[in-house]
Amino acid sequence: MNLRHMVQRSDTVAGRWFDRSVLLLIVASVVLMSLSTVPGLPPALRTALGAAEFVIIVLFTVEYGLRIVTADNRWRFVRSFYGIIDLTALVTFYLTLAWVGMMDLRAVRALRLLRVFRAFEFRRYIVATARIGRALKYARDEAVVFLFATLVLLYIAAMGINHFESQAQPEKFDSVFHSLWWAVVTLTTVGYGDAYPITLGGRLWTFVVLLLGMGIVAVPAGLIASGLLRAIEEERAEARRTEEQVGGTPE
Amino acid sequence: MNLRHMVQRSDTVAGRWFDRSVLLLIVASVVLMSLSTVPGLPPALRTALGAAEFVIIVLFTVEYGLRIVTADNRWRFVRSFYGIIDLTALVTFYLTLAWVGMMDLRAVRALRLLRVFRAFEFRRYIVATARIGRALKYARDEAVVFLFATLVLLYIAAMGINHFESQAQPEKFDSVFHSLWWAVVTLTTVGYGDAYPITLGGRLWTFVVLLLGMGIVAVPAGLIASGLLRAIEEERAEARRTEEQVGGTPE
Amino acid sequence: MNLRHMVQRSDTVAGRWFDRSVLLLIVASVVLMSLSTVPGLPPALRTALGAAEFVIIVLFTVEYGLRIVTADNRWRFVRSFYGIIDLTALVTFYLTLAWVGMMDLRAVRALRLLRVFRAFEFRRYIVATARIGRALKYARDEAVVFLFATLVLLYIAAMGINHFESQAQPEKFDSVFHSLWWAVVTLTTVGYGDAYPITLGGRLWTFVVLLLGMGIVAVPAGLIASGLLRAIEEERAEARRTEEQVGGTPE
Amino acid sequence: MNLRHMVQRSDTVAGRWFDRSVLLLIVASVVLMSLSTVPGLPPALRTALGAAEFVIIVLFTVEYGLRIVTADNRWRFVRSFYGIIDLTALVTFYLTLAWVGMMDLRAVRALRLLRVFRAFEFRRYIVATARIGRALKYARDEAVVFLFATLVLLYIAAMGINHFESQAQPEKFDSVFHSLWWAVVTLTTVGYGDAYPITLGGRLWTFVVLLLGMGIVAVPAGLIASGLLRAIEEERAEARRTEEQVGGTPE
Repeated sequence: MNLRHMVQRSDTVAGRWFDRSVLLLIVASVVLMSLSTVPGLPPALRTALGAAEFVIIVLFTVEYGLRIVTADNRWRFVRSFYGIIDLTALVTFYLTLAWVGMMDLRAVRALRLLRVFRAFEFRRYIVATARIGRALKYARDEAVVFLFATLVLLYIAAMGINHFESQAQPEKFDSVFHSLWWAVVTLTTVGYGDAYPITLGGRLWTFVVLLLGMGIVAVPAGLIASGLLRAIEEERAEARRTEEQVGGTPE
Repeated sequence: MNLRHMVQRSDTVAGRWFDRSVLLLIVASVVLMSLSTVPGLPPALRTALGAAEFVIIVLFTVEYGLRIVTADNRWRFVRSFYGIIDLTALVTFYLTLAWVGMMDLRAVRALRLLRVFRAFEFRRYIVATARIGRALKYARDEAVVFLFATLVLLYIAAMGINHFESQAQPEKFDSVFHSLWWAVVTLTTVGYGDAYPITLGGRLWTFVVLLLGMGIVAVPAGLIASGLLRAIEEERAEARRTEEQVGGTPE
Repeated sequence: MNLRHMVQRSDTVAGRWFDRSVLLLIVASVVLMSLSTVPGLPPALRTALGAAEFVIIVLFTVEYGLRIVTADNRWRFVRSFYGIIDLTALVTFYLTLAWVGMMDLRAVRALRLLRVFRAFEFRRYIVATARIGRALKYARDEAVVFLFATLVLLYIAAMGINHFESQAQPEKFDSVFHSLWWAVVTLTTVGYGDAYPITLGGRLWTFVVLLLGMGIVAVPAGLIASGLLRAIEEERAEARRTEEQVGGTPE
Repeated sequence: MNLRHMVQRSDTVAGRWFDRSVLLLIVASVVLMSLSTVPGLPPALRTALGAAEFVIIVLFTVEYGLRIVTADNRWRFVRSFYGIIDLTALVTFYLTLAWVGMMDLRAVRALRLLRVFRAFEFRRYIVATARIGRALKYARDEAVVFLFATLVLLYIAAMGINHFESQAQPEKFDSVFHSLWWAVVTLTTVGYGDAYPITLGGRLWTFVVLLLGMGIVAVPAGLIASGLLRAIEEERAEARRTEEQVGGTPE
């Protein structure tokens, strides 16, 4: 009973401490993962990092067991978003323990990082998370259309710059694939400066592409703003409906 | 009859498969076009790419024929947006077949890419596409005014930087045309780093221009956000009107 | 009478042609001004450019005279926005004619460019221009506050980076004035790449500054979006009020 | 009485002059601080700057005394936002006077800069400042969630680029900490050009990260736009409520 309160709920004292401990473990796990990428570590430290990581994984295994044991519907938990992430992180770890050195551990370990999203379930930010989620849902179809338009624009931009610059700078714009890299870096306005047009035609083309691109880049901001406003409006409409059903007179 | 269902409609099984096949062909055509820009391909592969492209064009020709044959109003299809794109892509291909090597084929072939926009007609995204289209229509006049203001700002920025930097860096800011390139790269915040001011006056000028520019860059986002909100509102008003006409009492 | 129709109004045939001719003259003036910045022009061409510029100025003088003669209230026109721009452009030109070579003509000539804004008065875009103007008016006070916050953030960012990087890169961050240039280029996300932090402290500071900066950069978009929505709402309210006064029942 | 009017209020003539003098002192203090970072100043000028700074601090001390003396509730002023800033600036200055040269004075002096925010209390911008404050308050929880998502995205981006580029460019992507710097510079679209991917995998990864990143960068603009619109709406609702209470009929 008490155990269930601790693991499954976050409105009890024990529950809050359990949540905080798990978050601390995740942060420790992220820090260890980061440290282990530093090259030229002394072997002793590397061994210590490995040991600490093992301890954390054992604790995560215990947490996973607790979550299954205390779940109202165990099978549903296993198939839930967090259930699958937890299981994947654990299974891949134990598998890589068995065949150490055979594959690149880092990509696998990064999966564990996804657990950090549990933090979004923290009480205080539940409303904000739900609102952003709702805004994203409203904006989803428009976002797909926008993404598609962006891909087409990137391709057209790359074809164009390839046409203008492949003679002048063959080493930088030698195929559409190289030009696509330029298009991505330019249209997102990152502009590393590793590739840029030098011909007049290429510069005029860049100008046209950027004018369109500024419109393209503006779309997500517009989508999110309108999505958020719709989500807030919907929340109010729901609140009003609840009020009316309860019998209170609407304001 | 069956053929018409397949070609003209996307709510039948045959229609969906037809649409998907065409989209697949377009993607294959894009991939082939990209591959043919890679320099130093072995001649055998280049021949194979050419052959594959020919096959695809023949299939596009068949598709174009089917669309004309099954159209309710053939002349209207020929003059429609997609009708003109399809015809242009085909005609230019067959013309370039006749005079191979006489002109740059790539720019012509890129026209075919526009066919990819047919994907926007996919059922699921029709509402989103229509909404974005409506938002853009609402924002059109403001966008023209904004575009004009951007061009003027670009020109003034270029005149100013030319004044400050033409002495210090004559090779980079030697005329307004060179300075315009700097203005485009700076005001869109791409910042390649191929040209930047080094004098105190030029830097102060850049600062003033960027403060104005940040406002300018923000305009499209504002236009799209307000356009989308108007489009959503209008959709609701229409839905309400339809409801009233049907006889249902509005909520 | 006829002359007044031509100069003062844009809803008559003569008025439209007058407006277009003036716009053409402005564009020609811009092109001439741009060409005269190209270095190493042959003297003959330079003379021709000067002559063409003189002709344009004479035509502008005629236009200014016509506008005064046909104005309902001449003194008000002289003191209006366009009246002052026109007069400044003319007076400075004739003054520089008298003392040729004594001062840099370019900065003075650029003033003439402001006349291009007359284009905003074109019939079709009057509503859009008015709406953007109204949105900007609504957003003005917030924009001043935001501008002030940006300046403070720029200064703090510059003080911080100077603290971290002045030892490591004395040639790039040797005083707050140099660091301010870095702050401007970074916070506007231009990122030329002429100055960037290399110490750990400087990079952490840049990270903090950029997180704040992304919020700052987002403010103008938010201001313009909300300003536009208010302007549209206000237009509707006005339309409704007019309708009611006329006696029609509001929808 | 008169003194209280001068120090505490800004709607009297004396009050306005007092506010302006304080603002002038702050600006002078900022300019002095900036000048003292210029390297290689002659000793005489450095002494003069130090003296001027001492005078300004004395004046700030007088101002702080006046504010305490004239406050309605002295203890509340001392603990208020501006009270703490003022006290910190003064105490740190006098402490550093006693142990000159023992610590870096600049970081401490920068605290004084925060006083510049007093300007936000100027009459004219009180409404705008309050509105922005309200918009930020509405957007706060969403901003925290967004910030957290940004941090996670930055980390995942850094892990990924480290995986792809650590072999090809070990000096630039040798640990996650170096890769994080790349992630910050890329996702904020600054793009200095000091580190960028050169492998195909790294470039594809950058593309994916930037597509997500453009959505992320758009969130603040959306939050601020919707926050501002809510703040304006709320202001109107309040105005209507006040009107009703006064007895006037709502429009």
